[in-house]
Amino acid sequence: MATASPVTFDLLATDPSSRGRVGMLHTPHGDVPTPVFCPVGTQATVKTLAPRDLKELDSRLILANTYHLYLRPGAELIARMGGLHRFMAWDRAILTDSGGFQVFSLQDLRDLDDDGVTFRSHIDGSEHRFTPERVVVIQELLGADIAMVLDECAEPIDRAYNIEALRRTHLWAERCLRAHTRPDQALFGIVQGGVFEDLRAESARVLSAMDFPGYAIGGLSVGESKADMLRILDVVAPLLPADKPRYLMGVGSPEDLVEGVFRGIDMFDCVLPTRLARNGAVFTPDGRLNLRNAQFKEDPRPIQEGCGCYACRHVTRAYLRHLVISKEILGLHLNTVHNVHFLLQLMRELRAAMQQGELAAFRQRFLARYRVADAQARRENRQAWGCRETR
Amino acid sequence: MATASPVTFDLLATDPSSRGRVGMLHTPHGDVPTPVFCPVGTQATVKTLAPRDLKELDSRLILANTYHLYLRPGAELIARMGGLHRFMAWDRAILTDSGGFQVFSLQDLRDLDDDGVTFRSHIDGSEHRFTPERVVVIQELLGADIAMVLDECAEPIDRAYNIEALRRTHLWAERCLRAHTRPDQALFGIVQGGVFEDLRAESARVLSAMDFPGYAIGGLSVGESKADMLRILDVVAPLLPADKPRYLMGVGSPEDLVEGVFRGIDMFDCVLPTRLARNGAVFTPDGRLNLRNAQFKEDPRPIQEGCGCYACRHVTRAYLRHLVISKEILGLHLNTVHNVHFLLQLMRELRAAMQQGELAAFRQRFLARYRVADAQARRENRQAWGCRETR
Repeated sequence: MATASPVTFDLLATDPSSRGRVGMLHTPHGDVPTPVFCPVGTQATVKTLAPRDLKELDSRLILANTYHLYLRPGAELIARMGGLHRFMAWDRAILTDSGGFQVFSLQDLRDLDDDGVTFRSHIDGSEHRFTPERVVVIQELLGADIAMVLDECAEPIDRAYNIEALRRTHLWAERCLRAHTRPDQALFGIVQGGVFEDLRAESARVLSAMDFPGYAIGGLSVGESKADMLRILDVVAPLLPADKPRYLMGVGSPEDLVEGVFRGIDMFDCVLPTRLARNGAVFTPDGRLNLRNAQFKEDPRPIQEGCGCYACRHVTRAYLRHLVISKEILGLHLNTVHNVHFLLQLMRELRAAMQQGELAAFRQRFLARYRVADAQARRENRQAWGCRETR
Repeated sequence: MATASPVTFDLLATDPSSRGRVGMLHTPHGDVPTPVFCPVGTQATVKTLAPRDLKELDSRLILANTYHLYLRPGAELIARMGGLHRFMAWDRAILTDSGGFQVFSLQDLRDLDDDGVTFRSHIDGSEHRFTPERVVVIQELLGADIAMVLDECAEPIDRAYNIEALRRTHLWAERCLRAHTRPDQALFGIVQGGVFEDLRAESARVLSAMDFPGYAIGGLSVGESKADMLRILDVVAPLLPADKPRYLMGVGSPEDLVEGVFRGIDMFDCVLPTRLARNGAVFTPDGRLNLRNAQFKEDPRPIQEGCGCYACRHVTRAYLRHLVISKEILGLHLNTVHNVHFLLQLMRELRAAMQQGELAAFRQRFLARYRVADAQARRENRQAWGCRETR
């Protein structure tokens, strides 16, 4: 615990118009300018993208899911194949979640106690057990640059449950920290506490005292209202150490990225851009388009005028609609390329705005133009979470 | 008809040990070294591959299917979007088949007369009619570099039916030739006649007299035995003009490509490499592997040692098996990259062998090593043909 962390963070600039920060995350697999959006590679692949595509998009840090890889193909197998980087041919940085989020999403299939959680596989129903120590071992076998502690992702609006869950989450964070040994991997803590400001503040203080090299904010990507998420970020971010990276887990949409950066978040991950793409929905500065709509049948424009992604530089909405309607895999790939590019480009623009000290104005312009998907679409996106998110 | 063809063929070398030929096909969208294997882009996309991937593979000529594109998104729409090249962002050469093969595969859904064929869409059951003239118009709207005449793809072993079908095929070839006007597109004839040497010879003579800029040999990719195919190639190839390209439609497997080139064929197309890839089967010099098999679970080798494709340069059989078992799209893509590379590389090696005058020895070595998939697998491959081949 006393040794230097293999992942360090340099705070390069702060935006005077907000809590926004520009930084650089140094990892054993390269530097990552922050704020950063991490595409999600649940099963050791960011769906429809090869490593060459992610490099063309200049993605520096991607996520992989411990729960999924533990079940299939197995962490030991990946270790014997040289670790996750070599297995998936990705020589840049990787972060693995702890699997807690997925296990708690199993609901009826799990059994919790203070020592850990027993659950059944969504693939074959077989029984498994995650403890803080076991989750650290699994993540050390996978060998990502950043691992996460096992936390309890509680129903965010049940106060009594959150008090109990937070006690366990802090206990587990300490046990993970003690168990962690891999010198080329950093272990981040996770702040929980539901929608309750006092619990969140307590969690931030308790975890800060444990001196993790980075801090995540969990439990804000599902179930709660957007107002709750922003309110909690306003409370938690100022309580976290300024010289450590802050990671908002499972978020998000373009508007949530802007709001998160505005509140001092440095790292984000979400399946939204890749999942939406496979449903035919693509981001533009004016909001989402669904390419299945008949209005795009003969639309000769790219998804987004002036966009630098491969899809926008080469094909029209009409062609993409044809691919989506014809169930062609290339349509899923090109939409994914665009959506991931859109979020990575948004992060580049947010960094530039902060370097100019103009994040507040950028946020105002962005949110005035970007038509947020309606409540129904938001609800659907947030419902499709956890371990069932494999397609 | 008297104007110069926009597609010309230079015969560069002949192999003294076989009927094999090395040539160059000149098209409005670039030169194509022959013999060439053309990946199939049924619905205006070679399944799972973007144009950038096909260029990385150095594919020079791809196929698209008139029947499918006529039904969806429609030839007029593609014409209004600037033609097929621009629509699918492919600036190299394209060949469209006439749609006859797909329509005749519809069996119970078609109604044939001397003037044309009426059929129902496999998508929505709507009624349509192809005549020789209509099929030329549709292909001129699509705007490929090479279009094909409408032919009747008859049951290959029914002699009486083949005599009747051949009469119609020759009648339609002439009508297509008269109807064709697009100056930047060549129209190729198609030799038919089933498994009957005299009918095939007659067809080769009749069509040669019509002076097409290129000749296809149809009806040899389904239903007949491999021995029949080779016997017919031995009869037909020598009867076709030496200074025109010869195209064996719907073939094939690695061993069929070698046998076809050995008999003087210059062009091939087949869905086999892309379809097999999506089923988890990949080519190697020793035969096919099915990556679903448990034996590959921890196999640290690439699909093929020394292969230059992106998949073999970056990932293991174990990773590809994981992707296939986990139903990840990247697995379909990487397997497709390898299989298309394998056939394009085989064609490069065949050209080199002929330039050395050593095709017979190359063929012997290749066939001695390449374990041909069993009869059952061959039958399955050949059954999955025609318009139903969209997944």
